[in-house]
Amino acid sequence: EERRKKKGRTVFDFERWQKHRSSARYLRHMAGMFSSSVIQGLAVPLAYVVTVSVGVATYYTAAAKGMVPLFPALKVLASAPFSLTSFALSLLLVFRTNSSYGRWDEARKMWGQVVNRSRDIARQALAYIPAAQVHLQDVICRWTIAYTRALMCHLRQGEDLGSELAGILSPSELAALLAAKHRPNFCTQVLSAAVRDAQLPGTGPTSREPTAAVPAGAAYRMDENITVFVEVSGGCERILRTPIPLGYTRHTSRFLMLWLTLLPFSLWESCGLAMIPVAALVAFLLLGVEEIGVQIEEPFSILPLEVISSTIEGNIRELQATHGAAAAVPSPI
Amino acid sequence: EERRKKKGRTVFDFERWQKHRSSARYLRHMAGMFSSSVIQGLAVPLAYVVTVSVGVATYYTAAAKGMVPLFPALKVLASAPFSLTSFALSLLLVFRTNSSYGRWDEARKMWGQVVNRSRDIARQALAYIPAAQVHLQDVICRWTIAYTRALMCHLRQGEDLGSELAGILSPSELAALLAAKHRPNFCTQVLSAAVRDAQLPGTGPTSREPTAAVPAGAAYRMDENITVFVEVSGGCERILRTPIPLGYTRHTSRFLMLWLTLLPFSLWESCGLAMIPVAALVAFLLLGVEEIGVQIEEPFSILPLEVISSTIEGNIRELQATHGAAAAVPSPI
Amino acid sequence: EERRKKKGRTVFDFERWQKHRSSARYLRHMAGMFSSSVIQGLAVPLAYVVTVSVGVATYYTAAAKGMVPLFPALKVLASAPFSLTSFALSLLLVFRTNSSYGRWDEARKMWGQVVNRSRDIARQALAYIPAAQVHLQDVICRWTIAYTRALMCHLRQGEDLGSELAGILSPSELAALLAAKHRPNFCTQVLSAAVRDAQLPGTGPTSREPTAAVPAGAAYRMDENITVFVEVSGGCERILRTPIPLGYTRHTSRFLMLWLTLLPFSLWESCGLAMIPVAALVAFLLLGVEEIGVQIEEPFSILPLEVISSTIEGNIRELQATHGAAAAVPSPI
Amino acid sequence: EERRKKKGRTVFDFERWQKHRSSARYLRHMAGMFSSSVIQGLAVPLAYVVTVSVGVATYYTAAAKGMVPLFPALKVLASAPFSLTSFALSLLLVFRTNSSYGRWDEARKMWGQVVNRSRDIARQALAYIPAAQVHLQDVICRWTIAYTRALMCHLRQGEDLGSELAGILSPSELAALLAAKHRPNFCTQVLSAAVRDAQLPGTGPTSREPTAAVPAGAAYRMDENITVFVEVSGGCERILRTPIPLGYTRHTSRFLMLWLTLLPFSLWESCGLAMIPVAALVAFLLLGVEEIGVQIEEPFSILPLEVISSTIEGNIRELQATHGAAAAVPSPI
Amino acid sequence: EERRKKKGRTVFDFERWQKHRSSARYLRHMAGMFSSSVIQGLAVPLAYVVTVSVGVATYYTAAAKGMVPLFPALKVLASAPFSLTSFALSLLLVFRTNSSYGRWDEARKMWGQVVNRSRDIARQALAYIPAAQVHLQDVICRWTIAYTRALMCHLRQGEDLGSELAGILSPSELAALLAAKHRPNFCTQVLSAAVRDAQLPGTGPTSREPTAAVPAGAAYRMDENITVFVEVSGGCERILRTPIPLGYTRHTSRFLMLWLTLLPFSLWESCGLAMIPVAALVAFLLLGVEEIGVQIEEPFSILPLEVISSTIEGNIRELQATHGAAAAVPSPI
Repeated sequence: EERRKKKGRTVFDFERWQKHRSSARYLRHMAGMFSSSVIQGLAVPLAYVVTVSVGVATYYTAAAKGMVPLFPALKVLASAPFSLTSFALSLLLVFRTNSSYGRWDEARKMWGQVVNRSRDIARQALAYIPAAQVHLQDVICRWTIAYTRALMCHLRQGEDLGSELAGILSPSELAALLAAKHRPNFCTQVLSAAVRDAQLPGTGPTSREPTAAVPAGAAYRMDENITVFVEVSGGCERILRTPIPLGYTRHTSRFLMLWLTLLPFSLWESCGLAMIPVAALVAFLLLGVEEIGVQIEEPFSILPLEVISSTIEGNIRELQATHGAAAAVPSPI
Repeated sequence: EERRKKKGRTVFDFERWQKHRSSARYLRHMAGMFSSSVIQGLAVPLAYVVTVSVGVATYYTAAAKGMVPLFPALKVLASAPFSLTSFALSLLLVFRTNSSYGRWDEARKMWGQVVNRSRDIARQALAYIPAAQVHLQDVICRWTIAYTRALMCHLRQGEDLGSELAGILSPSELAALLAAKHRPNFCTQVLSAAVRDAQLPGTGPTSREPTAAVPAGAAYRMDENITVFVEVSGGCERILRTPIPLGYTRHTSRFLMLWLTLLPFSLWESCGLAMIPVAALVAFLLLGVEEIGVQIEEPFSILPLEVISSTIEGNIRELQATHGAAAAVPSPI
Repeated sequence: EERRKKKGRTVFDFERWQKHRSSARYLRHMAGMFSSSVIQGLAVPLAYVVTVSVGVATYYTAAAKGMVPLFPALKVLASAPFSLTSFALSLLLVFRTNSSYGRWDEARKMWGQVVNRSRDIARQALAYIPAAQVHLQDVICRWTIAYTRALMCHLRQGEDLGSELAGILSPSELAALLAAKHRPNFCTQVLSAAVRDAQLPGTGPTSREPTAAVPAGAAYRMDENITVFVEVSGGCERILRTPIPLGYTRHTSRFLMLWLTLLPFSLWESCGLAMIPVAALVAFLLLGVEEIGVQIEEPFSILPLEVISSTIEGNIRELQATHGAAAAVPSPI
Repeated sequence: EERRKKKGRTVFDFERWQKHRSSARYLRHMAGMFSSSVIQGLAVPLAYVVTVSVGVATYYTAAAKGMVPLFPALKVLASAPFSLTSFALSLLLVFRTNSSYGRWDEARKMWGQVVNRSRDIARQALAYIPAAQVHLQDVICRWTIAYTRALMCHLRQGEDLGSELAGILSPSELAALLAAKHRPNFCTQVLSAAVRDAQLPGTGPTSREPTAAVPAGAAYRMDENITVFVEVSGGCERILRTPIPLGYTRHTSRFLMLWLTLLPFSLWESCGLAMIPVAALVAFLLLGVEEIGVQIEEPFSILPLEVISSTIEGNIRELQATHGAAAAVPSPI
Repeated sequence: EERRKKKGRTVFDFERWQKHRSSARYLRHMAGMFSSSVIQGLAVPLAYVVTVSVGVATYYTAAAKGMVPLFPALKVLASAPFSLTSFALSLLLVFRTNSSYGRWDEARKMWGQVVNRSRDIARQALAYIPAAQVHLQDVICRWTIAYTRALMCHLRQGEDLGSELAGILSPSELAALLAAKHRPNFCTQVLSAAVRDAQLPGTGPTSREPTAAVPAGAAYRMDENITVFVEVSGGCERILRTPIPLGYTRHTSRFLMLWLTLLPFSLWESCGLAMIPVAALVAFLLLGVEEIGVQIEEPFSILPLEVISSTIEGNIRELQATHGAAAAVPSPI
């Protein structure tokens, strides 16, 4: 199952979009139906529906041959609720779809914030911390990268933060980070210390040291970006710790399973044996909607966080590399 | 009832998510149906629907035997409104579901803000208040913890703030807090006083005392976090004091009960005695949707606020513990 | 009608929530159906529907007895549009419900902002304005209370601002306020003047007077809260001046009334005289949804603004009372 | 058509709300049906539907008399798609309604921002710019009014900015404004210059001129309000330049027209000649929903911008008039 | 296909809106149906549906003549799922429509932010950077234009940034920009350097150079606008790299194609040969909704970014041109 999840961590480029939009997509999606991860995840409930259908067919066939008594109430009992409840089933599936997608979208946007604010704090550190404190620029750039990796490992099971950061932090820095329990918080602490050192308050308003020359506004615009990191850590933890109210999830499962259990009884009269594939098809279509919603409810194992983290590292490295060229542009000739 | 609520205060971890996503969930949810809290909460209206159904069945059976006169208008009267009004019933259930979930989600996000901003103000206090004022760092950390507990007790009945804060505030501090009527507000007042002392304005712009060395920007970024606490207190109170407009809640109840009262009349002809379980099943499926919505409309007795508060305490304690290590990182070697 | 509105200005507490959640609610709501304000507001259109139904029944009965000619087209004309248009009627009722609730919710949240920011500006004034300017603290606290009352009277007809503020402003202050046309704006002007006096700019950067000792950041964090008051005033006026586009309101009324006018024709064949109560019931269920939406479209006569204002006054008075105790907490022992 | 639009620019007061809420509204709306602007805007498509209906009726009548051959496939062809596609038509009408209302609501809220921030910048200018620079207070007040008129004329065809501002700007100021191509931008430039002059930076940090006495925080809180003006200008232009994706608008029109073209074929059998008014009625109900959505898609010709602008002018004039009284309140007696 | 996309990059003016609103639109849209881009994009699936329909018609005709055996189960198998699943198909199309439109709308609003903040940073640079540093004003204006072009080329395939910026940057500036991999980031670096030079921090708080006279607040309000640029770059990349969860897209395609494949079987009995055009029509109406949603899912090839970029360039050029006139307005006469 977890392998399937990794396959789904897609990042699109221009070519993928052209393929995605092309009208050949309909046939391609049809062709890949039976190898899709949705149908694999539905093996258990589909098997259940088919078993019920076969049982119902056997019973009615036997009853038709007089081998067992026929209870007409059974059919009636099964068919009446369909028209009366399908709107409520629809309601629950819409709710499941919208709230799961809302969670997935919020998680994706929070990681988009990590991308944006990583670039932003690196840009500010390079522009506003003077050359005399170049080691602080470097600390901010490297620990911003460390923050993104630490957050990824915080949100997923089985990631190894040590190997992720081997080339980024020094061994002693890495040891300090790994000694902390809440590692994303530790990274924000280091970033705060670097901002404070860049604007060392000294012991009085006139005693600022010559090397600590970041203007107050710049220092606290950097602090705003650290606050965004703190917000994203907490926001992701919130999604990870809190599912959609379980009452809805359970009621939807029960509703769907009751509905699909009664379906073969209701279809027998009009469909006969054809009822078995029909019930399986209807079950696939309806359960598929619910299954996708459940899969994306916890978005961090689906989102390509490792690609996003690498992008951030690349961006920050490039900002450091091009800083000299960019800073030279505004100088009067 | 209140015991059931406590059981529902779930916090997920990686294992729970795997179980939640596994395709065995359908069968597990079916198996737990009759012990679910939803069905227990529906005892009264389900009993009502079954009673009506049995009454209707008795009447029609007696009428069929000529013991009582048969009013055909009764059946007609009962069945006509179904197709004409089910879209409006659907509308009301969608509205109930979305607005209750919206309230639950807003409450959860506000408590997420408490997590985020607690960490943030502790991070800022540790980074920007100089070592000479370490007691102010400590006041901010402890009273931030006190704020989260005070808010929890403010939003729930029967919590005991005194015992919650026994190890966190000193006896005299606790006495001062308990003497206040609006305790979350008192905590924000203490936090404001600590921020002011960290940037003591003195009596003129050049007379700042040497120990009060927090730069203005840092002081007022902390004040922004206090404003967030004030906003969260007020936002939670708003949810607690203001239900969804009662007109909708009442109209939905009435609509559902009228609909379910007429259901047995309408089902008799096609279902006979099987109408009794069918009516109960339909009632369970529809009332279940409304019941979950009503249960989460007031979210503070459902959300695991005590777990969130403990998490915040742990986070702040760890930020204090790792502060030295983090602050040492940016120093040039 | 206006008396009914006042009854609906509900503020919930823990007991109300328990009652609200209890499963006895279904029977309680059924019992109170005929005394509900919704049904009273629907007297006119329900009378119309019953009149049409009786007329139709009379006509068909007379026609059946050969007293008047029977136009079969009439029945056909009436029944055909039902299945073809009910989805559009559903759409209009959903739109009405969502947009009215959106307005109500926005208004409630804006008044929540008034609560939050009143507490916040009082907290800041008490913490950051030095004791030498205690009269400015008092001006800010009292005029914040005045702002909330002035806004309430601005948004409702027939309130008397003078008596509301008798104990809060001095007679000369009250006279100045009542002389202004836009009184909420006048309150924000007074608050701005108090903030300016707390940070008197003097005539040069080094000439700040010793009594005007609020740091710039604190002064302008207070100004941010005044901006929120200005935003809330304007936001409430926007809701008061601008209804949902009238085209939708009118089209929904017309759609519903046409639909309900044709209903008796369509029900006659299947229901006979039972059509009269059926039509009335369907009309009650559908019109009820629209009626609640129209009632909450203008939310200020429904929301308990007087309770919210009193809460604010109580909060600010308590902040003033507990200020000394809170300010003493951070002092080192 | 444009005259009808002007009629619709409604501003509500307490009396209008009472009328709006009263249960007489149903009969009033019915009575005004044929004079409504919606029905007038639908003249063309309603005429089309009636023409098709009459043609279909003529053909079937002739065919029944054997005058023309009867193609039974025609009826079949027409009726089958109804049940299969009405959910998709419903979807498109919901989408049209929600996205048009979203645009209208966003535009209304942006103009609400203009109201709020106009008052706010005037409040700040009066409170924080010292009396020695009273001409800068006046420039800010007058050019804020000019901004709102310039934006209105920017968003509508055929308005005359010169006459709107005759009494507000001096002839030379007006000439400078009219010489600019993007006039709302020019107004924000003038406001920025006034803020800069109020806090003239001089040539070094200690050389601030005595008359330029606005503290930095106040100056840049005013600049934030100018940024809001820039945002609103751009946001309104975005709505004006970018319709809802035309694919949806066209697909909805085509869907509706195909659906209504086939309707008479499908209704003939059950309704006979009554089909003509039925088809017209269904067309009115469905097209009405789409028509209102299209009319409010471009909201600036519907919203009462001229009333909002006048309100702003009145508010700012009153703020100037009451400034002295308000500023005197906080003075200690 | 890509040519079709360019045609759709529409910018509306007053005339287009009048045409868009006129009631002649219904007939115009009908007339243009077969040349519409939607129908062209649907060639493949429509051909598929027609092929299936013809095959089914041939089979049933042959079976009716006894040439092939008739399997009645086939018809049953095909018709049963329709009523049972259409609500779920509706749900998926609503979800597709809303989430695609949400992405399109977010992209459009982010480019609206580029417009707003470009004007705002130019306005601030001209107002607050003193004449002695006019070259910095020019750098900010020109590199803001460069940013918008760089972002457009970053989000589209096949654009040539070099020729776009030929007249805006100097050859050496352009070379520096083209040498960077992430060019929008490089532009924000240059803008940051210009802001820093405008408020050169020097080596101590009293050593600010006389030419670097921008007040801190102004400098960091410009930095806020640069942060918005960084946010927009990242936000657009997020939309470009992350499609709607592919599970939904694939399940919708499969659902639609299965539904349309079974449609001819289900229609044969009632429609006969007329089933072929009916199936094609239903397919066009349903597939059209999904197709438009897929086309706008990646919005950057649809939105008129080149027009928006040119508008920004024109706005900034005009701000530079009118700066002198605007700055002269507030001077006292």
